[in-house]
Amino acid sequence: MPNFQSEYNRYRRLIDQRLRILADEGDRKPRSIAAPLRYVLSGGGKRLRPMLLLLAYQAVKGDSIREVTWRTPKKATPHFSPAIDAALAIEALHNFTLVHDDIMDRAPSRRGRATVHSKWDDSTAILVGDELVALAYRSILKSKTPRLREILRVFTDCLLEVCEGQGYDKEFEGRSDVSLREYLRMIEKKTGRMLSDAAVIGGLLGGATERELRALKKYGQHIGRAFQIQDDLLDVTGGRSFGKRIGGDIVEGKKTYLLLTAYHLVPEHKRHLLDKIVMRRSIRKSDVQTVRKLYQRYGVLDNARREVEKNLREAQRALENMKPSRAREMLRWVAEMLHDREM
Amino acid sequence: MPNFQSEYNRYRRLIDQRLRILADEGDRKPRSIAAPLRYVLSGGGKRLRPMLLLLAYQAVKGDSIREVTWRTPKKATPHFSPAIDAALAIEALHNFTLVHDDIMDRAPSRRGRATVHSKWDDSTAILVGDELVALAYRSILKSKTPRLREILRVFTDCLLEVCEGQGYDKEFEGRSDVSLREYLRMIEKKTGRMLSDAAVIGGLLGGATERELRALKKYGQHIGRAFQIQDDLLDVTGGRSFGKRIGGDIVEGKKTYLLLTAYHLVPEHKRHLLDKIVMRRSIRKSDVQTVRKLYQRYGVLDNARREVEKNLREAQRALENMKPSRAREMLRWVAEMLHDREM
Repeated sequence: MPNFQSEYNRYRRLIDQRLRILADEGDRKPRSIAAPLRYVLSGGGKRLRPMLLLLAYQAVKGDSIREVTWRTPKKATPHFSPAIDAALAIEALHNFTLVHDDIMDRAPSRRGRATVHSKWDDSTAILVGDELVALAYRSILKSKTPRLREILRVFTDCLLEVCEGQGYDKEFEGRSDVSLREYLRMIEKKTGRMLSDAAVIGGLLGGATERELRALKKYGQHIGRAFQIQDDLLDVTGGRSFGKRIGGDIVEGKKTYLLLTAYHLVPEHKRHLLDKIVMRRSIRKSDVQTVRKLYQRYGVLDNARREVEKNLREAQRALENMKPSRAREMLRWVAEMLHDREM
Repeated sequence: MPNFQSEYNRYRRLIDQRLRILADEGDRKPRSIAAPLRYVLSGGGKRLRPMLLLLAYQAVKGDSIREVTWRTPKKATPHFSPAIDAALAIEALHNFTLVHDDIMDRAPSRRGRATVHSKWDDSTAILVGDELVALAYRSILKSKTPRLREILRVFTDCLLEVCEGQGYDKEFEGRSDVSLREYLRMIEKKTGRMLSDAAVIGGLLGGATERELRALKKYGQHIGRAFQIQDDLLDVTGGRSFGKRIGGDIVEGKKTYLLLTAYHLVPEHKRHLLDKIVMRRSIRKSDVQTVRKLYQRYGVLDNARREVEKNLREAQRALENMKPSRAREMLRWVAEMLHDREM
């Protein structure tokens, strides 16, 4: 198998580099925005969304992508130019959601670094988020494409859905009767949508057929679903992204995939602990341990793992409707990587 | 003179009506967003920005706009369709800035009604603002035009500038050495830009020539400048929009056009009171009275009034580069109306 990991890392470095340039664009920004903006966009991360966009673009183009042999962004530009601006846009949009969500969730840190509102203040974080939306649109508007209106519609609906997903998420905090179906709809809006839209926009830029667009959308949706359930799992099994403690979701009373499926899997006389989480009564460290055991014993974890695998298989299968290409293989590899991830 | 006032009111009712429809678009919104969104968009106001956009469009088209004889929005649609969606977009964008700025300024009320963050909470206000941006883009994307990319660039740069203007505004609160030039740049970004961009977008939709675009831009810029200085004046002379008390800017230590020009007009030995405002030391009601007298005595108010008039004249003059039309006359009338406004 080709060395996709080192290729992924190279793409990622390019994205990081270009995001820094995007942050500095327009030099008349007030310092109070410029510094936190740079801080956010240099925060690293997997850059999964722009990666999906670039790969979807290339998969549609069907380039037999040889190992790309550029070193400087200048050299890289001719190869990536049609999709890179949209890729940066989706990453900027993603970062906008993180900055604003962190304010609402009062999160002190993310990816091991202080969040914008805790390092600066709420006003700064609100403004920086707003500015990221503007920069995202500015970037995507640079894309050379005859399908601009279509692409921007997808992009805008994505923004709308993410807001609505976050709205549901906040609403669920105050409710004790959230159904699994409602939860899945919420994460589809909040997490899934941006992953599938990244793939779809890449496809649109590459001139995808309807069939290819459907395949890319399906791929993204299943990746998104798997990604979120995986995230819920990692909270309990440990090893979730640094900066978060194990069992954090349980302590915070978050309605996760695990908690909601547990109501179907744990026998009725054992559900009082689940109720305790849902009602957000004071949860102790020892409770976290008990809940973990409960999840283990009644197959909640196994069920979630199966669901992750099922979704990743579906994602792989969707790709069969794309023509063979190296980029398609790399999209497959991304799905595998997500399965094995421990962060 | 034709009855522009009743025509303006009719346009405004149409805009109000269509904004309500925009707020309800997509029926799967979480209730926690839907209700405050409707609240914001039904808040009334002058609807100046969409009005400028519609009038600029018509002025470029050069229609001899007879009294429009529609009653229902259905009937109105064929007449307005090319510009109405962009007009709603600019108003949604304007409302986004109000909602987010009000959080940052901890403003309890606006236009005599509780602000979103005080009626609901900060999280809701952040989300509603974000959703307004998305709805704005969704609306403008409906515009049928071959110049979509150009229009969206103007729209996006407008969003960017407004964020930066607000950034400067917040920055200035903590500084005592803001110059008049900096202040003017700030209000140009925060207030002026959206007014001139509204006119420019209307022009672009109507297929304006470069000359017409320049005229519309200039018109909007001068209207914006006049509008802002007028606003600063009304704070001191009274009669500013209901819900605000006289001298509020002075009490809050805001760097206004009046305060900054006062430093040039008031003799040095009398400037200690100005310093007191700038330093935001506890200002009493009696201080407000003293400052007013100072402004009056040393011609600060007269100077500001002259500046308003000068800008409105410049705005009128810019229109001479447009072909004659009823819409152009109405744009003139808007400038006069702003001069006479007491709210």
